[in-house]
Amino acid sequence: MPDTGPLTGSLTGPVEVVGAGLLGTSIGLACRRAGVEVLLTDTSSENVRTASGLGAGRPREAGDVPTLVVVAVPPDHLGRVIADALEATEGTAAVVTDVGSVKSGPLAAVAGHPGAPRYVGSHPMAGSERSGPLAGSAALFDGRPWAITPHAASDPDAVEVVERLVRLCGAVPVWLTPEEHDRAVARTSHVPHLLASLVAGRLADGPENHLALSGQGVRDVTRVAAGDPGLYGQIVSANADAVVALLAEVRTELDRVIEAVGGGDGDGLRRVLERGVAGTRVIPAKHGGPPRAMGSVWVSVPDHPGELARLLADAVASEVNIEDIRIDHDPGRPVGLVELVVEESRADHLLVSLESRGWSAHR
Amino acid sequence: MPDTGPLTGSLTGPVEVVGAGLLGTSIGLACRRAGVEVLLTDTSSENVRTASGLGAGRPREAGDVPTLVVVAVPPDHLGRVIADALEATEGTAAVVTDVGSVKSGPLAAVAGHPGAPRYVGSHPMAGSERSGPLAGSAALFDGRPWAITPHAASDPDAVEVVERLVRLCGAVPVWLTPEEHDRAVARTSHVPHLLASLVAGRLADGPENHLALSGQGVRDVTRVAAGDPGLYGQIVSANADAVVALLAEVRTELDRVIEAVGGGDGDGLRRVLERGVAGTRVIPAKHGGPPRAMGSVWVSVPDHPGELARLLADAVASEVNIEDIRIDHDPGRPVGLVELVVEESRADHLLVSLESRGWSAHR
Repeated sequence: MPDTGPLTGSLTGPVEVVGAGLLGTSIGLACRRAGVEVLLTDTSSENVRTASGLGAGRPREAGDVPTLVVVAVPPDHLGRVIADALEATEGTAAVVTDVGSVKSGPLAAVAGHPGAPRYVGSHPMAGSERSGPLAGSAALFDGRPWAITPHAASDPDAVEVVERLVRLCGAVPVWLTPEEHDRAVARTSHVPHLLASLVAGRLADGPENHLALSGQGVRDVTRVAAGDPGLYGQIVSANADAVVALLAEVRTELDRVIEAVGGGDGDGLRRVLERGVAGTRVIPAKHGGPPRAMGSVWVSVPDHPGELARLLADAVASEVNIEDIRIDHDPGRPVGLVELVVEESRADHLLVSLESRGWSAHR
Repeated sequence: MPDTGPLTGSLTGPVEVVGAGLLGTSIGLACRRAGVEVLLTDTSSENVRTASGLGAGRPREAGDVPTLVVVAVPPDHLGRVIADALEATEGTAAVVTDVGSVKSGPLAAVAGHPGAPRYVGSHPMAGSERSGPLAGSAALFDGRPWAITPHAASDPDAVEVVERLVRLCGAVPVWLTPEEHDRAVARTSHVPHLLASLVAGRLADGPENHLALSGQGVRDVTRVAAGDPGLYGQIVSANADAVVALLAEVRTELDRVIEAVGGGDGDGLRRVLERGVAGTRVIPAKHGGPPRAMGSVWVSVPDHPGELARLLADAVASEVNIEDIRIDHDPGRPVGLVELVVEESRADHLLVSLESRGWSAHR
């Protein structure tokens, strides 16, 4: 379904949030910010107390009737809690959604349920390295993609209610079927994470003096592998079919690489590398725009407070939009390196402009 | 060998740079900045003209006698050009080094040569997405690790000359044997790059609508895979033994992951993920300090010129050292997200401080 622009109507509460952890509390805070009533439930009464103390809603009481139930519990419990929510709201028009990372499993748990048309899965592409209600924030979803995954029997009105929630939270809706969603996250999230873990695992095995040569590349590749193994294990296990299918492709390609490198087949190796280059070019620009060619300008920045801010001010004065920044500084040295990532067509201009302002820079 | 601190003496020229591309020209510029005479040679006379025009040295003439020859040619030509340099300087005390990404192959090419003691390999961990002399910069090596790889027969005086070059270029010396170096870069660079290419290759195969869910994770994992396939293919091929040995380990682990995910073995999957977490923790802090726990603060930043600089100024005023910055902004939205990475112990302080200055932020 195409994005037809923001809906005009707003979300009518009360919204019940089941599971007052990071995501649930953040959704509660975003709803309250918009003036929507929020009812909180959690198997931990302390989580409910903390989340309501933060202003994410009030504890649900007997007699409360939600118009939307948002299930935000750990992956292993999703199916059961969604089914429970459909039972509990039977005879009402309440919509039930969840914010789990995998969508086929929860759907299977409600298939055949008379309330299934009121269920529409969803998945915000947002998180934090921290968990629990204290990490919650109304700003968590600002500008993030948020998948909405209607199934064949989903009521169109229910889909619209979930879209209102997504927009209220400041996120960007992306519509996919549950099966497509799961194949998509296997490709864009689960398999990249598992391979990053394999790369990082080799570092754990390596002699310490080898690691001194670690550069930005290996830091980038392994960054996601630092995530919580318990939670991530649940997520990957819940998407086993799509993940295994893709890992089998990776294995075939890996065999091809081993054969090419071991056998001195430079052309075969080059084909794999070229396919990789093509892959980096199809990742959409952040938030779905067409991919743009990016270039970097490296600047040596004295390690004094305020120098980085001065550099940014000079970059702004150069009228170049900074797309990304990486800082590489050594506490033992008086100078740090700052990489400014900008549109390729603007990189030379930025370089000249910064040099004219007295910065030592290169591309 | 431990780093015993900067040498007191400086490098005595003339330094001959063979290959006036990105690295050669940058070394020439750094030497000239320090007042050291530089002689340039290249199979392309245009490269020599361009590099000398930039101030990286002067064309080598008959009768010039270098004290140090720096070979900076493409990987496939290293061994031959290093041997040629030893021939050309026979009977002198000239030291020969190279800046290639792999060290065992070039060494094999000079083993048994009477001049072999005058050869000491090296490898600066620096580069650019661009190539050629025009991309050269005296600042290219500032603060970067630069491996020095003496072999069993290397003359200690020759090792010292190479160390002087490394320090003159502003880089941080890291001593390794050639074999250790090659195993180290297989682990920290070549295998991470190849696996990033495999992940990116799967994206190239994927339907476009799946890619809308791409987040920062897959961007990080695949970033290095955008590098030049021709050059990278040569580098990996030159390090085939170490790369294949490590890829075989990856393959064994990959089989284990496929079996664990496909067979519902949550504990087996978790062990792989935990090993990955351990790996991310042994990567040294930038420039070799002990790893430190990092935390992130996300800030919503209005998309107006100067707002980013104002945020940086406020972060500096909070007296928190910003280790890294990531920007996630959507041209179609009025607000961008900026991730500030700081020491974990300082993240809460930064959050409170920024909020008190009116920023919408979360962890």
